[in-house]
Amino acid sequence: MGIAERALIAEIRKRTGSRSAAVRVGIGDDCAVLSVAADEEILVTTDMCLEGIHFLGEWQTAYSVGQWCVTRGLSDIAAMGGRPVAVFLSLACPEGTEPVWIRDFVDAVRSVAESYGANLCGGDTAASVSSIAADIVVLGAVPRGQAVLRRGAKIGDALFVTGKLGTSQAELAMLKAGECEERRFMPKPQIEAGQKLRSIATAMIDISDGLSTDLAQICEESGVSAILDADAIPVAKGAQLADALHGGDEYQLLFTARAEGKVLTRVAGVPVSRIGAIRRKSKHAVYLIEDGRSRVLEVAGWQHRF
Amino acid sequence: MGIAERALIAEIRKRTGSRSAAVRVGIGDDCAVLSVAADEEILVTTDMCLEGIHFLGEWQTAYSVGQWCVTRGLSDIAAMGGRPVAVFLSLACPEGTEPVWIRDFVDAVRSVAESYGANLCGGDTAASVSSIAADIVVLGAVPRGQAVLRRGAKIGDALFVTGKLGTSQAELAMLKAGECEERRFMPKPQIEAGQKLRSIATAMIDISDGLSTDLAQICEESGVSAILDADAIPVAKGAQLADALHGGDEYQLLFTARAEGKVLTRVAGVPVSRIGAIRRKSKHAVYLIEDGRSRVLEVAGWQHRF
Repeated sequence: MGIAERALIAEIRKRTGSRSAAVRVGIGDDCAVLSVAADEEILVTTDMCLEGIHFLGEWQTAYSVGQWCVTRGLSDIAAMGGRPVAVFLSLACPEGTEPVWIRDFVDAVRSVAESYGANLCGGDTAASVSSIAADIVVLGAVPRGQAVLRRGAKIGDALFVTGKLGTSQAELAMLKAGECEERRFMPKPQIEAGQKLRSIATAMIDISDGLSTDLAQICEESGVSAILDADAIPVAKGAQLADALHGGDEYQLLFTARAEGKVLTRVAGVPVSRIGAIRRKSKHAVYLIEDGRSRVLEVAGWQHRF
Repeated sequence: MGIAERALIAEIRKRTGSRSAAVRVGIGDDCAVLSVAADEEILVTTDMCLEGIHFLGEWQTAYSVGQWCVTRGLSDIAAMGGRPVAVFLSLACPEGTEPVWIRDFVDAVRSVAESYGANLCGGDTAASVSSIAADIVVLGAVPRGQAVLRRGAKIGDALFVTGKLGTSQAELAMLKAGECEERRFMPKPQIEAGQKLRSIATAMIDISDGLSTDLAQICEESGVSAILDADAIPVAKGAQLADALHGGDEYQLLFTARAEGKVLTRVAGVPVSRIGAIRRKSKHAVYLIEDGRSRVLEVAGWQHRF
């Protein structure tokens, strides 16, 4: 650990807000020490965020990159129906990285995490050879046996999604075409909706790679196929159906539930759309009904590469 | 997530051994789901391993790099007196990385973790721009309130270290001088010793950055200083005193304990040396007695940079 790294750790430590009761030891020991309730299980998710692959410095402020990185992890906790507890940040920066960039990035990770009840509890810092690499770990908790898995979708279940889709992909296309200069879309993790859906959802995933890709994951894990109704997909203003079907980085929740349940139109203040149904396993994972005809929907999700 | 990444995840999943009871859901969902005993707390540590900074491909096989990466995290669990539960691996590789390199690396992480009772439970994969970046998270468990922290050293405590020191640094010097061609030193995490020391140690840290640096950490966190006896430092065969004082990557345990306790010479089969004492806070953190004279020991630890 070099002097610059020590200074960074000291800085992160100083800026960390008051610790929640779950955090017995935060930054500054060999490990963080955490505690969850006796009737809870632990959720863990990790996400790598690489400059030049997942983000481009010229399109995004350090704060928005940090916000995005931690949202990816928090959204995974939401997709299990859990509550966030702690965040760990491993950050490698090349020599010459502006200290203000690092400070803004860490501030975003810390403050977004804290707004959902999770403390920044540690991590690692290192000098990198050429570009910024961040790995963010989010640890959460969920009542024992109640995590909503991808594998629970049943034939005949209805398929739902929270919010509207396509904004992230539409904005990315504009950035690539030079029609706008900065990432403005700042998705939020659906933590509260995820927890409320624990009692309803049979399977759940967050839309990080794109609706078609993430739905295919549910189908694969559950041993089923799915049919989507093009007219029912909640396409965001300014976006096209294709953006909503294949664009990643939405962080809305895609879930299945019993079709005979009560009509679900809103959860935790977020609109919910019924967009399709689960069918028995078939040659392809996902089908789309458009203009009255069913066709195979190619799984063409987000590659996280600019 | 691209096709190569999916193939890698499928490969990792296939190679993962039988899950321990603690792992309810391993690789393949939004989060891993883990459970520890009701009277246990959770330990979390993260370590970044970067090609060109922490390791050089030409000096080490993929297996030895993987072994080293996971040992760093397991050793942090040992330094708290905990037991390893789960390992998470985030891996970014540039295009053109040999699949056999990745397989050997992941195999090392998985099999070393399993040999200490921890399962590889997930992670993230990504394409990197130029070099290999791995972040390894190890999650452990420790009886509630019993984690051994860095901050517990008391004035008058004796200072101990497990094993012998200096091999790693001596070998590195030979590699740099072209006197040997490959990293052969494969340190092991002192998991069993760490757990046994829970009832004795007042403060503990693992020697990852070097004895002088890691001892300074204990002093800083505990608000004390330390004095080392040069004659008592257990220098490994082929190494010099300076290698033992400042070389990193040893993964032996450095700990303090009441001086009046019984003479401690061995723990969990590992030799233990009494190498100094804890004193009140002073201008410098660490002093060395050599040839009957006391001098300030410059904290000159490992920089993890080749």
